Amino acid sequence: MKVFERLESEVQSYARSFPVVFDRAEGAHLYDNKGKAYLDFLAGAGSLNYGHNNPVLRDALIAYIGADGITHSLDLHTTAKAMFLEAFEACILKPRNLNYVMQFTGPTGTNAVEAALKVARRVKGRDQVIAFTNGFHGVSLGALALTGNRHHREAAGVTTTNVFHMPYDGYMGDGVNTIAYIDKLLSDNSSGLSIPAAVVVECVQGEGGITAASAQWLRDLETLCRKHDILLIVDDIQAGNGRTGDFFSFEEAGITPDMVTLSKSLSGFGLPMAVTLIKPELDIWEPGEHNGTFRGNNHAFITAAAALRTYWSDDTFQNEIKEKAAYLRRRFNSIQSRLSHEITEVRGRGLMQGLVFKTPELTGEICKTAFSNGLVIETSGPNDEVVKCLCPLTIATSDLAEGLNILEDAIIETLARHSADCAAE
Amino acid sequence: MKVFERLESEVQSYARSFPVVFDRAEGAHLYDNKGKAYLDFLAGAGSLNYGHNNPVLRDALIAYIGADGITHSLDLHTTAKAMFLEAFEACILKPRNLNYVMQFTGPTGTNAVEAALKVARRVKGRDQVIAFTNGFHGVSLGALALTGNRHHREAAGVTTTNVFHMPYDGYMGDGVNTIAYIDKLLSDNSSGLSIPAAVVVECVQGEGGITAASAQWLRDLETLCRKHDILLIVDDIQAGNGRTGDFFSFEEAGITPDMVTLSKSLSGFGLPMAVTLIKPELDIWEPGEHNGTFRGNNHAFITAAAALRTYWSDDTFQNEIKEKAAYLRRRFNSIQSRLSHEITEVRGRGLMQGLVFKTPELTGEICKTAFSNGLVIETSGPNDEVVKCLCPLTIATSDLAEGLNILEDAIIETLARHSADCAAE
Amino acid sequence: MKVFERLESEVQSYARSFPVVFDRAEGAHLYDNKGKAYLDFLAGAGSLNYGHNNPVLRDALIAYIGADGITHSLDLHTTAKAMFLEAFEACILKPRNLNYVMQFTGPTGTNAVEAALKVARRVKGRDQVIAFTNGFHGVSLGALALTGNRHHREAAGVTTTNVFHMPYDGYMGDGVNTIAYIDKLLSDNSSGLSIPAAVVVECVQGEGGITAASAQWLRDLETLCRKHDILLIVDDIQAGNGRTGDFFSFEEAGITPDMVTLSKSLSGFGLPMAVTLIKPELDIWEPGEHNGTFRGNNHAFITAAAALRTYWSDDTFQNEIKEKAAYLRRRFNSIQSRLSHEITEVRGRGLMQGLVFKTPELTGEICKTAFSNGLVIETSGPNDEVVKCLCPLTIATSDLAEGLNILEDAIIETLARHSADCAAE
Amino acid sequence: MKVFERLESEVQSYARSFPVVFDRAEGAHLYDNKGKAYLDFLAGAGSLNYGHNNPVLRDALIAYIGADGITHSLDLHTTAKAMFLEAFEACILKPRNLNYVMQFTGPTGTNAVEAALKVARRVKGRDQVIAFTNGFHGVSLGALALTGNRHHREAAGVTTTNVFHMPYDGYMGDGVNTIAYIDKLLSDNSSGLSIPAAVVVECVQGEGGITAASAQWLRDLETLCRKHDILLIVDDIQAGNGRTGDFFSFEEAGITPDMVTLSKSLSGFGLPMAVTLIKPELDIWEPGEHNGTFRGNNHAFITAAAALRTYWSDDTFQNEIKEKAAYLRRRFNSIQSRLSHEITEVRGRGLMQGLVFKTPELTGEICKTAFSNGLVIETSGPNDEVVKCLCPLTIATSDLAEGLNILEDAIIETLARHSADCAAE
Repeated sequence: MKVFERLESEVQSYARSFPVVFDRAEGAHLYDNKGKAYLDFLAGAGSLNYGHNNPVLRDALIAYIGADGITHSLDLHTTAKAMFLEAFEACILKPRNLNYVMQFTGPTGTNAVEAALKVARRVKGRDQVIAFTNGFHGVSLGALALTGNRHHREAAGVTTTNVFHMPYDGYMGDGVNTIAYIDKLLSDNSSGLSIPAAVVVECVQGEGGITAASAQWLRDLETLCRKHDILLIVDDIQAGNGRTGDFFSFEEAGITPDMVTLSKSLSGFGLPMAVTLIKPELDIWEPGEHNGTFRGNNHAFITAAAALRTYWSDDTFQNEIKEKAAYLRRRFNSIQSRLSHEITEVRGRGLMQGLVFKTPELTGEICKTAFSNGLVIETSGPNDEVVKCLCPLTIATSDLAEGLNILEDAIIETLARHSADCAAE
Repeated sequence: MKVFERLESEVQSYARSFPVVFDRAEGAHLYDNKGKAYLDFLAGAGSLNYGHNNPVLRDALIAYIGADGITHSLDLHTTAKAMFLEAFEACILKPRNLNYVMQFTGPTGTNAVEAALKVARRVKGRDQVIAFTNGFHGVSLGALALTGNRHHREAAGVTTTNVFHMPYDGYMGDGVNTIAYIDKLLSDNSSGLSIPAAVVVECVQGEGGITAASAQWLRDLETLCRKHDILLIVDDIQAGNGRTGDFFSFEEAGITPDMVTLSKSLSGFGLPMAVTLIKPELDIWEPGEHNGTFRGNNHAFITAAAALRTYWSDDTFQNEIKEKAAYLRRRFNSIQSRLSHEITEVRGRGLMQGLVFKTPELTGEICKTAFSNGLVIETSGPNDEVVKCLCPLTIATSDLAEGLNILEDAIIETLARHSADCAAE
Repeated sequence: MKVFERLESEVQSYARSFPVVFDRAEGAHLYDNKGKAYLDFLAGAGSLNYGHNNPVLRDALIAYIGADGITHSLDLHTTAKAMFLEAFEACILKPRNLNYVMQFTGPTGTNAVEAALKVARRVKGRDQVIAFTNGFHGVSLGALALTGNRHHREAAGVTTTNVFHMPYDGYMGDGVNTIAYIDKLLSDNSSGLSIPAAVVVECVQGEGGITAASAQWLRDLETLCRKHDILLIVDDIQAGNGRTGDFFSFEEAGITPDMVTLSKSLSGFGLPMAVTLIKPELDIWEPGEHNGTFRGNNHAFITAAAALRTYWSDDTFQNEIKEKAAYLRRRFNSIQSRLSHEITEVRGRGLMQGLVFKTPELTGEICKTAFSNGLVIETSGPNDEVVKCLCPLTIATSDLAEGLNILEDAIIETLARHSADCAAE
Repeated sequence: MKVFERLESEVQSYARSFPVVFDRAEGAHLYDNKGKAYLDFLAGAGSLNYGHNNPVLRDALIAYIGADGITHSLDLHTTAKAMFLEAFEACILKPRNLNYVMQFTGPTGTNAVEAALKVARRVKGRDQVIAFTNGFHGVSLGALALTGNRHHREAAGVTTTNVFHMPYDGYMGDGVNTIAYIDKLLSDNSSGLSIPAAVVVECVQGEGGITAASAQWLRDLETLCRKHDILLIVDDIQAGNGRTGDFFSFEEAGITPDMVTLSKSLSGFGLPMAVTLIKPELDIWEPGEHNGTFRGNNHAFITAAAALRTYWSDDTFQNEIKEKAAYLRRRFNSIQSRLSHEITEVRGRGLMQGLVFKTPELTGEICKTAFSNGLVIETSGPNDEVVKCLCPLTIATSDLAEGLNILEDAIIETLARHSADCAAE
């Protein structure tokens, strides 16, 4: 551990919650350097939807490297990239009747968001963009402006500009239709809100507390964008790649964004990769205008193509996710109704669900307790008030059940300890 | 090729210069899908300093993956990260008496620059930053503001702010000391230039035309920064990792930057990886303030550690680079003196050198001709007026010679064709 | 008229509504160069609260000029400035128990707002400021960012920054407490809204449609500012100087702003003058930091002092305003109830009231008709849907009645014409 | 004096240098409230070119007010405005063959600059603007960004944006052609400098140290603007209205700016007034886009028209100014050559000249000494290193001589005291 203390910046965060040294991993399990196993309900913050070292992907990757396949290729054409493009077209775009071109941005979600913002601003000739309360879209300066969190935004040392945060679905309470409010602001020439180039939205807010927008709200948002000539960008970095049960999180609502950002689980193996999907008529890029060294991560192309061919050639995988999601919901509902004095709500969709706690101070302790019992699980939300499940989509049902058992026990134990403390005071 | 046309955004650039599909690569050679070999003098724009699929690194990586080593770990502690940290400390920091902590940013150079900007602005409580004419630092919004190129900057669709570009060494002609001019602006309360948080500089400007600042100018810049209480950030993404003959490009000048950004060849294998080196007393980060999904690319840690241990445990490799650099300089000097009516200058340091052409229109044709003869080589500079050599540092001397022969022939052939065209008009 | 066409920029606006050449003016009457008289219900957009060429002020001014009193004095101490300061202290500050220092900014409202913004940002060390939907605060770049109107904001040619517009009292409909919404955004670390340096508010929105905030809403706003450590700035440029019946528009609510901007009727005579009132503990100015040539308009000091001594030494004038305001409200209520199919609402406070029309297209025609019958009156609101009364506070009751008769007739005539047109279609 | 201490903000500056209460003024003389007379070499910082209470203007104004002429008229057409327009056309535009429309902005120089910036940015569709080192253009946020002085700029509490300061004529020393440097930056696609909408320049920098650009440099600047399709804006607020001997300061160079800002002495009487002159083809304003309450200061129109008719109907006045300017130059040259160990340079043009001191600390003391001997005179320059003469243009030659005598004595006395102090140390 000492080398980390000596040489790593204080910026590290997850390492503080899980203070061991991890060594290897397989499927839904992580192993530390003492051999202790952990069920992984964090899964790289949604980057390991197909589990750790998924054997199909791993074997394809080892074979590729062993044959001296190209690793780094800038934006050159390679066999590996062609394989990915063909797989994405065949398994994802065609079956969904979607027509997008793909921009391989720098291999991070934030870079995909930066690219989408550039396209939107130039296509519309407008500087400003709407994002939503509690949204998270990255920390490079352009994407950071979209991110709701002050902790992240103020870290920039400069004030971010050109973004206005509007209330997400449900933000103003049950009675208030936030789309109607945004419509009023956009329709009122004197509201102070300029017509933006784009709206950037997550269909399920990961960092923001595992809050899912309703399908109706998303459809209303699309209608609003069309009405005011605004581009609709879905940031599907965390909720995409099957996390909600469909490949894209927006499929349930039946909307068609103008651009979509994908990253995290896109490579399927945890390798850095990101793309921005752009409607062909919006692809106004001149050659090289948005460049970067690692746009062509061929290892990621190989594993991504394998993941798409393996899991998205038919609807078997989707159905499995939805079954597991239903099971997760039942378990979370049961925990919530049993502990409704403290757990106010079950939130989310698919295998992206969370329990909302009245007392945010408890969630850290719950996760700590779970960790000591062999479960890696994290919090979310503006005040870390949500304990979230982001397990691999490929998790065995028995592992899912076991993880939830550990979690439930950790909650009960923590609440009991807390009640005892309160009584003692 | 059709899948690329059908599905890839128009933003692609290198693929236009080298319109084949590459398939595999080894050392200094690329092979297209028809089996044709190419010497690679582009080397991933400086990301493949140790060649393609360097066998030491490749074997370490395959072994790691085969043993189910962790691929993706957010910012968790892992065995692989420890190996990298220890290797970097032992091979790089200690021998150079440098004291930095390392921030693993998102695995792209632009993200490392964004992180350095945030640290500088917060440490100094100032918004503005100085960059240099013809500098390139990335295309996410924060780094983009530092980038001199209008083509890149205007692609943002918003005007970048808070950066002032000052004249680089030599920019104002031989007679003018640009540091003295900057000093005057900083010393004059009414110059319009505020005291910035930091100066961001490349010791050799890659995109800017392979222009190298003199050691004296760099020392004067460091003195200027100390005088006005400004942080000095060296962006060593392209010129670092041995490219100039030393590990860091600033070693020759004997300066000590407050922060250093590294990426490109850091993993040694072409895998996405980036770090920001920060003097410990400037490490003001709060946990998680600058986060990102792919900060822990363990595959890259494995190959980076292997590269450091293999090439930087003693000065053998450095000496080899310097010998090859001297050879390259001799060859470029000879070409230049032979064709001095058209080639005005040889520029750069180490294995990062370029020939400057009077007629920028010729360089594209030269590279095209070279490509058809089996050499991948690219241009640089505001008007693409420079043909640059960025070959792998591990290139065999015979391959270097062969590549230079191809280049020389391509230049002669192109100039001859051009003279004939002119005569015919 | 030709000289105006030939030499004046297209930016002129009021001159388009009232296309005559005005020559002289007295009390509530304007006279054109053909001798035709007009009742003035516009009163310099609220700059002529004491009427045109008020004889007390006029005589004081002529005497001052005749005695070679200083006209222009930068920010030097002058006898005239002392007279104004003493009058303002005696008649305004002391009786209201208010403790402010006065900054004489450039003699325009927008400059007073710019100064207040600077103080707020520096005192709090924060860039961002909250303004309100439909607010108007000027058109120089700093104040412009606060202005809700896109027509004005987009005229800048650059995107304004650092201001967020929040919903004014009533903006989200009757059921929604907009202060509670703002409180939620400020209390939520992840809302996207940073804690601002200040909130800038008009107690009655002049340009925004003569909308008056309730006293309770203003008190809640003050409480909100205190809770989140935000400065409260009341822009009283239009609604101050007695327009609502009290000297300051915020007196009714019993709040104490941290800063107040005054201009328009401050000189009492229509002369350019502006001040920013600042709580002494916030007066962080260094000498000359916010300067300007015309900060010391001594002619304005003379007329302002005379106005204060004449009208604000006791409560006679206030009571007269309130009586006239009550009369105006009765007349407007009667017009509204008679024509409630078209006139939806009577808005405003004091002698700043408006009739809201369902069909904004009619208001221009109504004002045009009124003008041809000898009444200068203008519209307001995002869509010019409000016909507003801003008559001099000193207007004779009979003149007020006559003006309202002209207006009522113009409304009836216009509506009748419009109905006939509709029927004919 | 107590009322000023009690009630005025700390922002006041001139009042600190001249701590008396001024009461009345006539021609080149100010009188304090004890009857003491002062020669005025500050003249409202260039706002009183025709002297205090110039009788021709004063009588016209008193007559106008006495006849109930309109004081305040928003942007309505008035007899007084017509008189001004006609006089400006006849006396200024026509004889110089200039074709501009006039925008009556808010009656301050900073507002005229804000208007010009808006026009330029919208006409060119570009955000950025070039200003010059040591320039001063006002303190509202848009104009402030152009102002070189950090003291003023940093007072904003936010970082100003979208302006780049380039080196003024002579800024880089005798050998360096600053226009050539700017041309290089504009011609280089990768310099970091975007093509701006406009260049804003003062032909003589008042606040910046009474530095005059050469006629050749101004012509080269105009050529540069045409070459790169950039608008040329001359800020003639301080140097215009006859200060340099011509009505406009740019006449000597024979250039034709796209826009010109005028204020300060425009009214002739020290009354707030400002205009932006715009080439008709650039007048893209929509009605009311840049508005403001005090655009129609009719008192100022009356005095301005009288000043133009009286002083600019033929070249008598110009010739007088030039004679006095030559006398001033002789006297300053003589002082400088006598005290060349301390006074390094005589700067400026017309009746806008300054003495540059090696020891900036002395200038305040010199002015203080002069003041006690009956002369109001001020400093200028980034370090207040210049003592400047801005006397009324109408000053009697004997008064000019007397003032210069007082100044010369004050300099000699101060230098002597200072030498004695140095010797004593």
